[in-house]
Amino acid sequence: MNTRDAFRQHCRATLDGMRQEGRYREFVALEKLAGQFPLYRHHTPEGIRTVTVWSSNDYLGMGQHPAVLAAAEAAVRTHGAGAGGTRNISGTSHLHVALEAELAALHHKEAALLFTSGFVSNQATLPAVLNALPGFTVFSDAKNHASMIHGMRHSGVRRHIFRHNDLAHLEALLAAADPATPKLVAFESVYSMDGDIAPIGAICDLAERYGAMTYLDEVHAVGLYGAEGGGIAQREGLEDRIDIVEGTLAKGFGVVGGYVAGDAEIVDFVRSVAGGLIFTTSLPPAVTAAALASVRTVRTDGSRREQLAERAAALKAALDRAGLPRMPSTSHIVPVWVGEASLCRDVARRLLAEHAIYATPINYPTVARGEERLRLCATPLHTDAMIAELVTALRAVLPGTARAAA
Amino acid sequence: MNTRDAFRQHCRATLDGMRQEGRYREFVALEKLAGQFPLYRHHTPEGIRTVTVWSSNDYLGMGQHPAVLAAAEAAVRTHGAGAGGTRNISGTSHLHVALEAELAALHHKEAALLFTSGFVSNQATLPAVLNALPGFTVFSDAKNHASMIHGMRHSGVRRHIFRHNDLAHLEALLAAADPATPKLVAFESVYSMDGDIAPIGAICDLAERYGAMTYLDEVHAVGLYGAEGGGIAQREGLEDRIDIVEGTLAKGFGVVGGYVAGDAEIVDFVRSVAGGLIFTTSLPPAVTAAALASVRTVRTDGSRREQLAERAAALKAALDRAGLPRMPSTSHIVPVWVGEASLCRDVARRLLAEHAIYATPINYPTVARGEERLRLCATPLHTDAMIAELVTALRAVLPGTARAAA
Repeated sequence: MNTRDAFRQHCRATLDGMRQEGRYREFVALEKLAGQFPLYRHHTPEGIRTVTVWSSNDYLGMGQHPAVLAAAEAAVRTHGAGAGGTRNISGTSHLHVALEAELAALHHKEAALLFTSGFVSNQATLPAVLNALPGFTVFSDAKNHASMIHGMRHSGVRRHIFRHNDLAHLEALLAAADPATPKLVAFESVYSMDGDIAPIGAICDLAERYGAMTYLDEVHAVGLYGAEGGGIAQREGLEDRIDIVEGTLAKGFGVVGGYVAGDAEIVDFVRSVAGGLIFTTSLPPAVTAAALASVRTVRTDGSRREQLAERAAALKAALDRAGLPRMPSTSHIVPVWVGEASLCRDVARRLLAEHAIYATPINYPTVARGEERLRLCATPLHTDAMIAELVTALRAVLPGTARAAA
Repeated sequence: MNTRDAFRQHCRATLDGMRQEGRYREFVALEKLAGQFPLYRHHTPEGIRTVTVWSSNDYLGMGQHPAVLAAAEAAVRTHGAGAGGTRNISGTSHLHVALEAELAALHHKEAALLFTSGFVSNQATLPAVLNALPGFTVFSDAKNHASMIHGMRHSGVRRHIFRHNDLAHLEALLAAADPATPKLVAFESVYSMDGDIAPIGAICDLAERYGAMTYLDEVHAVGLYGAEGGGIAQREGLEDRIDIVEGTLAKGFGVVGGYVAGDAEIVDFVRSVAGGLIFTTSLPPAVTAAALASVRTVRTDGSRREQLAERAAALKAALDRAGLPRMPSTSHIVPVWVGEASLCRDVARRLLAEHAIYATPINYPTVARGEERLRLCATPLHTDAMIAELVTALRAVLPGTARAAA
């Protein structure tokens, strides 16, 4: 067999199939502008224009905060561009040490460990934990993020999937499992594509009853919820019931990178065995410095969290008043239902071309087929005027969607 | 079972075992100083002092190049800290597009695709390729990097491991495989822990004879070898025989991030299906801008490559003259044999404490047990005086190593 020809043919057929399904992704080139968020420059063959972005995960606009930018610039000047090595091979700086201490403090845990991304932190930590004990079994929410799924699959351990946020189903699965096997319940707090929130306390109750450990992904909550921005578990006074909390520096904190936090011995164990930590260049000094400045700012200043809550409520109210098919959400993430891949892509294309509004069409594999949507995120910097423009634009491009919303 | 208690006990026992084996890793906090590379500040409880680093992967010192730093600073000021989204969700900028075009040009390929790290590029691309065709079989060099192994394992396909750089073994495995199955030969050019180089042309000959595709990791070669810094395949005129080349922006280019390059359709396929690309925040604007400046500089100015070759030869000659047990190497990576974990750690500790020299002790799992070593990398910025100091220090801390070298 000539593998090259067969593989190229497969590539072509796959891409053609995606185009026919309407889920071929073209990345839109958007230029983020410090000081003007959520306005971006949109690059097209015809030229550059300004658009309002409604799908950024820079949830608090910290990616343009002056203290964050100053820290990044100073670190570039002082320390240069890259770290130059893995954490073990000359790539650990005083900044990494300080940021890990700050993240541990944020979550009131003994220790934290940085990874190059939230994706990698899940993908590397879950197998490190699950391969530690023979027979480890993981109980995983059906809507857990791809990075958790990758990590659990990679571990090769037995995985029970409970229906999304379904306590009865989780309990049934826990009760049916061998009491002698070690167990981990892995779930998220805020789910990214629906904007709903897990019943963390009740899940911890079940975990305790069945002797399971808890692993909580707070990626879409850190910085945004809780007195210091420690996430939903912090808001609900449940931090000490979570064994391992996972978070990101790329969303609420506006930079890049991921981390886990927990007991010192657990974190030291993960540090010592996780391939995704050991074998990769550490975060650049400027990224680490920027993230440190961001976490410190966000911890001590709750005003952005208040503004975010107010703006998200204003967005939801405006969509509801206009009869637009927003999906139920108890967070700052506000999905608008479309339900078909080609239509979803077309709606997003028209929003951008005709209304200078960018909202990402979310399709398979990010959500299930038939559940396509626009994913909107209000931030403290989205004005009433921007909300009004968005509503007008959505009404223009989403004709007849009352049907789809049913 | 109380999982928490059992898991904590496992963590403690594992860490204790590592300490007893002498392979518990303590990350040394080193502060990289722009303009002074390879001199770093070393942070200890007793204070801060200056050390010479011999184990950086910033192989050309590009992490402190003025054009790279200027690009990073300008991008922070103009675009802010983080990208704010995945490539598909508002995280693609004109800088990402330009950098991918530059990397494709570097390797004379039609297209390139950025990842957050070299680790992720291997881990995400290999399963995307290997899961494309039923029965795909991969032939993998025994010393391939952990990230490739993670990617291949994650794919779940049949994996044949050929002895390191052993053409006869590779051919025997290819010949024994079903001619009807699709095949991929996955290997590196420069091997990181030995500093030896693969017989790329001969491997490509075998791949062609048995209808296999080729996947080449040039992570320790890009920027350093070839007329434009495209790597060993470029130096040997073999670029068009490599189907997928993988590289990093974190070593020769001095920043952070990874990529693959190849035919446009293949790269577009990987872009469309690879989880490690789809589900993660894209590289920050400043990282992308810095990397773009670095690649452009390194492509057009070959002087650093010449200096690197000259300095590596000078280091090897000095070690040989002093009778120090350097391992054979045909690249800029110069390992010095120790052969025992506790001794290796002790030698590195003494180099740092008594001679203000940092060289990382490399132990399991990065190399096999019993093959512990110090890994030295000359750069264009290591002076004759630094080499002389290193030799003196190694002679002081490596007594009786003539035996170990035999």
